Amino acid sequence: MSKPLAIGIAGLGTVGAGVANLLRSNAGLIASRAGRPIVVTAVSSRDRNKDRGVPLAGLRWYEDAVALAADPGVDVVVEAIGGSEGPARALVEAALAAGKPVVTANKALLAIHGRELAALAEQKGVTLAFEAAVAGGIPAIKALREGFSGNQIRRVAGILNGTCNYILTEMRIRGLQFAEVLREAQKLGYAEADPAFDIDGIDAAHKLAILAALAFNRPVAFDEVHVEGIREISAVDIAMAEALGFRIKLLGIAEHGEGGVSARVHPCMVPLSAPIARVDGVFNAVVAEGDAVGRVMLEGRGAGGGPTASAVVADLIDIARDRYTPVWGAEQSALSHAPALPMQRHRGAYYLRLMVLDRPGVIADVTAVLRDAAISLESMLQRGRAPGEAVPVVLTTHECDEAAMQAAMARLAALDCVLEKPALIRIEAL
Amino acid sequence: MSKPLAIGIAGLGTVGAGVANLLRSNAGLIASRAGRPIVVTAVSSRDRNKDRGVPLAGLRWYEDAVALAADPGVDVVVEAIGGSEGPARALVEAALAAGKPVVTANKALLAIHGRELAALAEQKGVTLAFEAAVAGGIPAIKALREGFSGNQIRRVAGILNGTCNYILTEMRIRGLQFAEVLREAQKLGYAEADPAFDIDGIDAAHKLAILAALAFNRPVAFDEVHVEGIREISAVDIAMAEALGFRIKLLGIAEHGEGGVSARVHPCMVPLSAPIARVDGVFNAVVAEGDAVGRVMLEGRGAGGGPTASAVVADLIDIARDRYTPVWGAEQSALSHAPALPMQRHRGAYYLRLMVLDRPGVIADVTAVLRDAAISLESMLQRGRAPGEAVPVVLTTHECDEAAMQAAMARLAALDCVLEKPALIRIEAL
Repeated sequence: MSKPLAIGIAGLGTVGAGVANLLRSNAGLIASRAGRPIVVTAVSSRDRNKDRGVPLAGLRWYEDAVALAADPGVDVVVEAIGGSEGPARALVEAALAAGKPVVTANKALLAIHGRELAALAEQKGVTLAFEAAVAGGIPAIKALREGFSGNQIRRVAGILNGTCNYILTEMRIRGLQFAEVLREAQKLGYAEADPAFDIDGIDAAHKLAILAALAFNRPVAFDEVHVEGIREISAVDIAMAEALGFRIKLLGIAEHGEGGVSARVHPCMVPLSAPIARVDGVFNAVVAEGDAVGRVMLEGRGAGGGPTASAVVADLIDIARDRYTPVWGAEQSALSHAPALPMQRHRGAYYLRLMVLDRPGVIADVTAVLRDAAISLESMLQRGRAPGEAVPVVLTTHECDEAAMQAAMARLAALDCVLEKPALIRIEAL
Repeated sequence: MSKPLAIGIAGLGTVGAGVANLLRSNAGLIASRAGRPIVVTAVSSRDRNKDRGVPLAGLRWYEDAVALAADPGVDVVVEAIGGSEGPARALVEAALAAGKPVVTANKALLAIHGRELAALAEQKGVTLAFEAAVAGGIPAIKALREGFSGNQIRRVAGILNGTCNYILTEMRIRGLQFAEVLREAQKLGYAEADPAFDIDGIDAAHKLAILAALAFNRPVAFDEVHVEGIREISAVDIAMAEALGFRIKLLGIAEHGEGGVSARVHPCMVPLSAPIARVDGVFNAVVAEGDAVGRVMLEGRGAGGGPTASAVVADLIDIARDRYTPVWGAEQSALSHAPALPMQRHRGAYYLRLMVLDRPGVIADVTAVLRDAAISLESMLQRGRAPGEAVPVVLTTHECDEAAMQAAMARLAALDCVLEKPALIRIEAL
């Protein structure tokens, strides 16, 4: 067996400690699959004395993460600090510049600085691996980059944020409003004290940007992703979705059509017959559509120490075996520069909920606006009667232009009989 | 870009022709992902003049498949002949012996001769790849071998035969008997004229043997797989399953417990809440359970020219990139020799259907047999009344020993009041 691969881990939170522990607990089988032992030789964290459930005896310890990259006894750097700037970014740049492979779970860093980091990794001829950055232990990165490598990938989509999926699932099962479930999720540790990053769709957008880069062999472009979160999803929409045969999911969807590439994160109405509609709770799923393979779905836990460590260690084993793949699946010189399509160019079907005064003539006013925008209705549903008060009216449309729909939404919101901001949810047949 | 990788394809049926066509239609993107062009230089098939939708101009043509391995203008051999013996086996042996990597979709060959072929491939230091042998275009092999390589895998299971899943799905949806649906499936081309290989579970057992070898890093052992097919599944069992909250699926299940390794293919009652219960029609699914990653499911098309070609080309791209993995995920010297557990050692819950005479005392006779075998009942259901005639009685048990259940089955079959061979279906909570 060849000489051990020496790992330096920066950051000893859930991810870093999970990696250290998995490398120890499964050391024998990891060595047999890697063709050599994989051992941690150095770590970096701010507080040496905090107990993280990882024995640090015999390991070199650095307060400054960047110093880890310069340690001649470290072959590969695992970046588990997090954040798109600061020490995480400095460490990854330093390690790549020193010609050392890097494994990271840091989706924010990759989504925002992945373009330059990928170029640097290729220039230095080293691996920059990030299976753990998307969908936890589900091998979505490997599947897209290697498993479907013979395919032109037309679409990749997924449930990419477990917090949002948990909240939407609980709202549905228990009939609760968003704010109530969020408070509970915060108590249970499923949502952060500042939940914006998850519930506003930013985390999912980071991951989608990475998946799109791999699927289309195109440098990562987070700023091109259209992002909407789940704050405005109401219990009434969840109930209406059920009545219409849909589930509401926060999806990330990236597509490559004739005119270019689109990427968007927003709540979707998904037909119950679609497998992804039934992926509930904290689970994640990724669906890829290739011209040869058709549609493939991967489903599993998207977060947590175990699944994340599983993904990081898989990357380390690839490095130990010298299995090299360019960061976005193809060399820089072969990457696509297909244009990005703005959200205004989207075409799709829509669910629209209006809170209207229950009085004669309201439906005529509403449908006239849609007719004038050349938007064709598929169904209309009014639930409950309360003369003179607010009642929900739900409309679903056939496929139409996003631009037309947004213009119609503005006109609907301005109608006297429409009492609240209308709710708009895109219908996706995955 | 490096020099092209030259491919020889043996067999120009659905698989071989599909590979040749995919390599041509996606040549540009395949070259960018492989780091070099992948081109077919030679083919082998029996009849040169048959039109297979593959232009053969400019390709060297061999009547004798084995001659392909000796062609100095062939770097990698794609074996798409099929069958565990004859020219397929001879070609793979010849190519490996000549130090050439082999890509095959041939599950029968791997299940039966994989042990020796893997040893030969390792001795020669070349790749023997077979993503297409299991679950079509679903990257199940890559996921098990590389994606979950940091995990101790406790269980791998799946819907591995699309023909059986199609038949069971149609029986359920349309309430038909097995024989009727089989005849239809044969007409539609979803089942072979001689369907035994599929419906008796042999094809699924070949695939399970391969998955188990990868999951447990243990040489493939087809003869250790317990195999039962779906011929005896009756429409009444499918209806009873629905009533009890189950679906009937033909599953392959391999487990690694304290005492050793078990592998079995048989019809299962799966709770509707399990994601695999909803994988219908010709779709396949593979579920892996690792100690770090938890449970991950992969789902997609398990057969057909496109998905199979997708998997073969992914293997070719790995070879073009020099990404090497030992056949069973670890070198021969590191493989496990954990003992195989016979089916008699299985423990589980059971569904039991008896056709009994509708007369007083029958249930007492039946339950006495189970009590004497120390088998504990979970539920009992009798549907319909027809005094003096045959009615179905369905029992489900708590977990018990397979050996005890088989002994009880023999005693039940011998009871006067039991009119047909009892039906036994194992309950699996995946």
